[in-house]
Amino acid sequence: SIDTVIPLKSRALWNKHQVRKFDKPEDFQDRFIDHVETTLARSLYNCDDMAAYEAASMSVRDNLVIDWNKTQQKFTTRDPKRVYYLSLEFLMGRALDNALINMKIDDPEDPSASQDSKGEPREMIKGALDDLGFKLEDVLDQEPDAGLGNGGLGRLAACFVDSMATEGIPAWGYGLRYEYGIFAQKIIDGYQVETPDYWLNSGNPWEIERNEVQIPVTFYGYVDRPEGGKTTLSASQWIGGERVLAVAYDFPVPGFKTSNVNNLRLWQARPTTEFDFAKFNNGDYKNSVAQQQSAESITAVLYPNDNFAQGKELRLKQQYFWCAASLHDILRRFKKSKRSWTEFPEQVAIQLNDTHPTLAILELQRVLVDLEKLDWHEAWDIVTKTFAYTNHTVMQEALEKWPVGLFGHLLPRHLEIIYDINWFFLQDVAKKFPKDVDLLSRISIIEENSPERQIRMAFLAIVGSHKVNGVAELHSELIKTTIFKDFVKFYGASKFVNVTNGITPRRWLKQANPNLARLISKTLNDPTEDYLLDMTKLTQLAKHLEDKKFLKEWNQVKLNNKIRLVDLIKKENGGEDIINREYLDDTLFDMQVKRIHEYKRQQLNVFENGASIEEVAKKYPRKVSIFGGKSAPGYYMAKLIIKLVNSVAEIVNNDESIDDLLKVVFIADYNVSKAEIIIPASDLSEHISTAGTEASGTSNMKFVMNGGLIIGTVDGANVEITREIGEDNVFLFGNLSENVEDLRYNLQYHPQDLPSSLESVLSYIEWSILPENPNEFKPLVDISDDFESYLATQELVDQEFHNQRPEWLKKSVLSVANVGFFSSDRCIEEYSDTIWNVEPVT
Amino acid sequence: SIDTVIPLKSRALWNKHQVRKFDKPEDFQDRFIDHVETTLARSLYNCDDMAAYEAASMSVRDNLVIDWNKTQQKFTTRDPKRVYYLSLEFLMGRALDNALINMKIDDPEDPSASQDSKGEPREMIKGALDDLGFKLEDVLDQEPDAGLGNGGLGRLAACFVDSMATEGIPAWGYGLRYEYGIFAQKIIDGYQVETPDYWLNSGNPWEIERNEVQIPVTFYGYVDRPEGGKTTLSASQWIGGERVLAVAYDFPVPGFKTSNVNNLRLWQARPTTEFDFAKFNNGDYKNSVAQQQSAESITAVLYPNDNFAQGKELRLKQQYFWCAASLHDILRRFKKSKRSWTEFPEQVAIQLNDTHPTLAILELQRVLVDLEKLDWHEAWDIVTKTFAYTNHTVMQEALEKWPVGLFGHLLPRHLEIIYDINWFFLQDVAKKFPKDVDLLSRISIIEENSPERQIRMAFLAIVGSHKVNGVAELHSELIKTTIFKDFVKFYGASKFVNVTNGITPRRWLKQANPNLARLISKTLNDPTEDYLLDMTKLTQLAKHLEDKKFLKEWNQVKLNNKIRLVDLIKKENGGEDIINREYLDDTLFDMQVKRIHEYKRQQLNVFENGASIEEVAKKYPRKVSIFGGKSAPGYYMAKLIIKLVNSVAEIVNNDESIDDLLKVVFIADYNVSKAEIIIPASDLSEHISTAGTEASGTSNMKFVMNGGLIIGTVDGANVEITREIGEDNVFLFGNLSENVEDLRYNLQYHPQDLPSSLESVLSYIEWSILPENPNEFKPLVDISDDFESYLATQELVDQEFHNQRPEWLKKSVLSVANVGFFSSDRCIEEYSDTIWNVEPVT
Repeated sequence: SIDTVIPLKSRALWNKHQVRKFDKPEDFQDRFIDHVETTLARSLYNCDDMAAYEAASMSVRDNLVIDWNKTQQKFTTRDPKRVYYLSLEFLMGRALDNALINMKIDDPEDPSASQDSKGEPREMIKGALDDLGFKLEDVLDQEPDAGLGNGGLGRLAACFVDSMATEGIPAWGYGLRYEYGIFAQKIIDGYQVETPDYWLNSGNPWEIERNEVQIPVTFYGYVDRPEGGKTTLSASQWIGGERVLAVAYDFPVPGFKTSNVNNLRLWQARPTTEFDFAKFNNGDYKNSVAQQQSAESITAVLYPNDNFAQGKELRLKQQYFWCAASLHDILRRFKKSKRSWTEFPEQVAIQLNDTHPTLAILELQRVLVDLEKLDWHEAWDIVTKTFAYTNHTVMQEALEKWPVGLFGHLLPRHLEIIYDINWFFLQDVAKKFPKDVDLLSRISIIEENSPERQIRMAFLAIVGSHKVNGVAELHSELIKTTIFKDFVKFYGASKFVNVTNGITPRRWLKQANPNLARLISKTLNDPTEDYLLDMTKLTQLAKHLEDKKFLKEWNQVKLNNKIRLVDLIKKENGGEDIINREYLDDTLFDMQVKRIHEYKRQQLNVFENGASIEEVAKKYPRKVSIFGGKSAPGYYMAKLIIKLVNSVAEIVNNDESIDDLLKVVFIADYNVSKAEIIIPASDLSEHISTAGTEASGTSNMKFVMNGGLIIGTVDGANVEITREIGEDNVFLFGNLSENVEDLRYNLQYHPQDLPSSLESVLSYIEWSILPENPNEFKPLVDISDDFESYLATQELVDQEFHNQRPEWLKKSVLSVANVGFFSSDRCIEEYSDTIWNVEPVT
Repeated sequence: SIDTVIPLKSRALWNKHQVRKFDKPEDFQDRFIDHVETTLARSLYNCDDMAAYEAASMSVRDNLVIDWNKTQQKFTTRDPKRVYYLSLEFLMGRALDNALINMKIDDPEDPSASQDSKGEPREMIKGALDDLGFKLEDVLDQEPDAGLGNGGLGRLAACFVDSMATEGIPAWGYGLRYEYGIFAQKIIDGYQVETPDYWLNSGNPWEIERNEVQIPVTFYGYVDRPEGGKTTLSASQWIGGERVLAVAYDFPVPGFKTSNVNNLRLWQARPTTEFDFAKFNNGDYKNSVAQQQSAESITAVLYPNDNFAQGKELRLKQQYFWCAASLHDILRRFKKSKRSWTEFPEQVAIQLNDTHPTLAILELQRVLVDLEKLDWHEAWDIVTKTFAYTNHTVMQEALEKWPVGLFGHLLPRHLEIIYDINWFFLQDVAKKFPKDVDLLSRISIIEENSPERQIRMAFLAIVGSHKVNGVAELHSELIKTTIFKDFVKFYGASKFVNVTNGITPRRWLKQANPNLARLISKTLNDPTEDYLLDMTKLTQLAKHLEDKKFLKEWNQVKLNNKIRLVDLIKKENGGEDIINREYLDDTLFDMQVKRIHEYKRQQLNVFENGASIEEVAKKYPRKVSIFGGKSAPGYYMAKLIIKLVNSVAEIVNNDESIDDLLKVVFIADYNVSKAEIIIPASDLSEHISTAGTEASGTSNMKFVMNGGLIIGTVDGANVEITREIGEDNVFLFGNLSENVEDLRYNLQYHPQDLPSSLESVLSYIEWSILPENPNEFKPLVDISDDFESYLATQELVDQEFHNQRPEWLKKSVLSVANVGFFSSDRCIEEYSDTIWNVEPVT
């Protein structure tokens, strides 16, 4: 199946000149200077930190690409079952430091020699750069974040590709190469202001522009059935209107301690260069240029909404563009093996990260029926065996629905296919439950009740998949009893499984918290850091709970991380310190960093700060309350929360009576690389969503992995975190999720009096902070009936932190010791076993 | 003045690792495979011709960049006077073959060794590629043309940068990096149809993306004079509205037989990434993204007009964007030397290629007055000493004018500066000619007579420059007596000079016609091809006029070139031959390839073909009439000419009575790389513009350099070509240019009867070719009063070609022998001596 282009007689020459990875500082320096002097056309006379970042990245990338080539050739030769992870968001953050951590150096003379004998690759590069006149830290700091995601969903995809590469799963990620990632957040007069994130302004050394992979994608037009096809079930021809090209950009994804390098393929829209008579025969050159230019807008901007479905045509266009290009790429690869179509599901597993890629289901059915001329039912059997769907939310406002009119205009053939899928599906439902007429309208892929008929994308994803999973135990149970209850009734419970989310310990422990990683490695006597692959080893930390020297070192790591964060805050504050550096060890760093959302209830945390103000002197000394996160630009209430935080910060930080006992800080433009500095500095973090709303949460895991304690509601993965690290080590409060639906109903229809504590905070805020508009924050208090319980738990936190520090430290150690379950490696193993049926290729 | 970034202690290491150029096939192969395997992330299993083209180009580029770096460092160290050539068009064509021809290989062990001992670099690469499994010709054929120009003006700029590099002039070209070059031309039903030329679709290995050179450019806004400045002459502050970034893309320009590599810097527009409160405080994220995206449209498209000024705001925006970025780049470089401003004109010469870059005059004045706080007159003295202006046309419709309103909205401060320049200028004029009141309104930079007041850009260019040149002797005389008569009166004649255009013999002889170059090299006993640098050597060819073997070889070269062209025509005609290959040597290849324009009179040539039809059998055997060229998309009459050619071709080529004695061929999408195949195959070419309209023409020179004879009017450089190669060797006909203005006037107001020959052709065309619309072509005959003279001369041509072939061949040899004057090296020497006052740096 390999395309042999080079004649046999030339191959020896190719092999002779084959490129080898650098494995010594001198060889790295050779490549580095080659890139400076040729690729960048610069010299030692004008090589600044940015040029050094580029040259270093390109040199390291060269090593990765060599392994990438070998990995892909291995997969081509062995032809195993492959996984394709379709996600509209990949929140990758920075690449260079991650590549250094994952860099595997082989000894060409002695391939069996461990790289450990050569020392860490990161240290080698640090030394080599130092010799050339650069500091690694400054060089790393030049890299802009690849912010191609909004929050948890996008970062989960990034952790998953890391784990898949590490575990040797033959997997590719597929996404979009947005020219503008998630907006940069500025805070002006306390309000969030968004500025476009043109992240490619200085180029991107981490991508391979694959001009040779250009896939045409069609929109609009009409459907024809020329060869006597009488129904929509027969092979049809979609005569498209607009046509654009999807060009592939590949991002090598290295694994840890392996030379396996997987691929993340992101598509960018470009104008077609082909001649389209229909388009040009009007002779309007200016217009035809403008039309071509507009093609690029499809992948221009990431939609900045998190947990909210916005029904814009351009969004649907993005989704189809991405699904079509990815699927055709997958099909082309499959077809090389000349296998029969029935083998497709044995060779290909496609995971849908949320409903955004659901169109891939329709596209595969269309290709099989219309182009490959398979029988409808044969095709549908292949489709459903191929796809699996991950649900991320039970919240109505986040569930994707598309009006039938808009959908059919953009994708006329796909709408026909939806109707046919639904027709057969409803027939089966009716056969099984012939007397339940309500069921049919409840379970139908088409929602008929709204003013315009809508396509329920989650229902389509379920019908087109063989497995559906939630992302934490509680969440997976909840979907079975609420939004997908009818599907459980029809399909049975076995179609619905749980895979609790996880995070990669390479980025979130080793990269973000090198001091802690070093202490762990030393304590576990694990110099090669095998624990980062087998996190059960961390449980050995529990043996050292009584070791005072160890606890002191543990505390020192946290203190150093706090200093790193205080430096960042100072820099962001125009070089002025907000936090008193004298008492850092005695200051509780309390954090809530995540998207701003009503359901995540940052407002509860602010109210708690408000409540503390009058009691601060007598209650406890020294706390810093840190907030960070973006709001969707059009989300009024979330933006109000940001303003509230900043207003409270303004009061608190300038109140002389408070002195520096309490500080409130909003860190603007929260992103992955800031998270890497913020999270390791936390004593306590807040995961206080209204019970039943947060599907999993992953920042909770990141904090725990860095020795931070958490305060939280009985929601998402908080439940499993508590089970893993013990309920004594987690500060849970509030309602159980079972009651949530009732609670919401009651609150809505029987408004209750607010607890007095909240009343008093609110009145303080009204009169002290926002006298000009006192009622503005009122809507935020509706979901705060666990406020008293929250306050009480916060008091407990303060007491423990300030008065029982040794206990606190032990909880911190136990958190890390028992965090192993939340490694994304474990997730990938579960997906591989229970959903994808794939095995690592070694 | 060199920025020293790298600490001294690291320099030895940098020097140790310094990259060296490859000079052996093995080293080229090493780099080639490195680029395939790392930069392209491909392998011998999927390396096709396109990948080979990219890898070969990047490898050769690496060599060029090493020399580029050395050249630029040399210039920085020596700090000579520099030339900046500002041209809105650079019609570069393909780069790889040109780079191979110009590649200089040094022997690192023995720098004094001539590269000739190693054989030609092009041959070395050919062999090295062959070993790797690729044919050089196929690899070269992958490259898309860099079509960043319309016609002669843009190709002139390309020839000039070639000659400046070859001669060691410290010169940079400045232009725009259009995403869409000149449109691709398709012929559908005989009509031109334009499709956008998205030439960067496969990337561009020949450019160095300089993300570190980003210059902000401002538009719109208003002018403020805060520090008590009372008049527009005092330092003012332009508060801009829109702001975009100009990012530099560098194209290395190699010289022939020198390691000197000059730079062509093209600017691309990008959105700013800075935070602009005024823009974003409305909180409309979607709109702010859209605004940023639109920035890129400034450099999206090349305006497809040739010799026609289109007054669109976006065009003016392009011009200012390019002038501002280029000028600030020039100023930054000058400022490094810490010289005083009065030295600026001694260090910097800026040549304006046509009036398109005239805004640079205003921008320099603005920077000096507003930012550098120089006195107005001191500044203006510097400005006028710096700039020189090349005029390219006397035709009214091609002279740039901008409405004051549009201009002032986009560039409010620059409009003030124009008024002030004009004020002082008119004062001087009035002082010198106090009694001539009409003169003031005639000579004013502002035209007051039109419905809206207009800025006359050519006048501004003259007033702001110290020299003005035409591009052929006749043309340079003509501008002094017509459009610029008043300026000659005021400034005196010495400000107006002539530099007759030229072409680079490296591309237009050696690259386009390697067989002829080889024959010349052999005949002149000049194995190292020094004649390509000193074209006077060609006169020695005249010694061989009686050498029959030589003449036979000469003829054979032409025949082989005809076969190459016939192959191209066959390929373009869907694999079917139009031209009978049996009689190629006896077939006159008569060509007219250039932009389609009424004044260039392709219609005359078509009418001549029409006239031949009825007489073909008795008159002469075997001629192929070849046309090629694009029309501006909105130019009705030119598009009609194309349709006419194709209609005549349709009739002629399918008329059995004509058999294959006459064929008419329109080659679609004429461009530089097609010209390289077409021109060397010509026996005769047509340069028959209405006398006094074509400023110079350069295709006439290209044909002569390839041994083609020319038929032409007494126009442009035809006059000097005739002088150089002898009037016996050129077929001139028609009116002298002195009469042209009268003639045009007479024709317009006293229509005369058409000559009977033309009447008969027209009636034939009306009834045979276009019966549905017989009067459509009528407007084209107005300027054809020399038709009879043209027909007679064509008869002479046929007779000589078919009956006196030895004489014909001698004329062909004499053409090449005496073409030396038209090398662009001679132009650059003249510019250097008489206008720029610069010397080569060796």
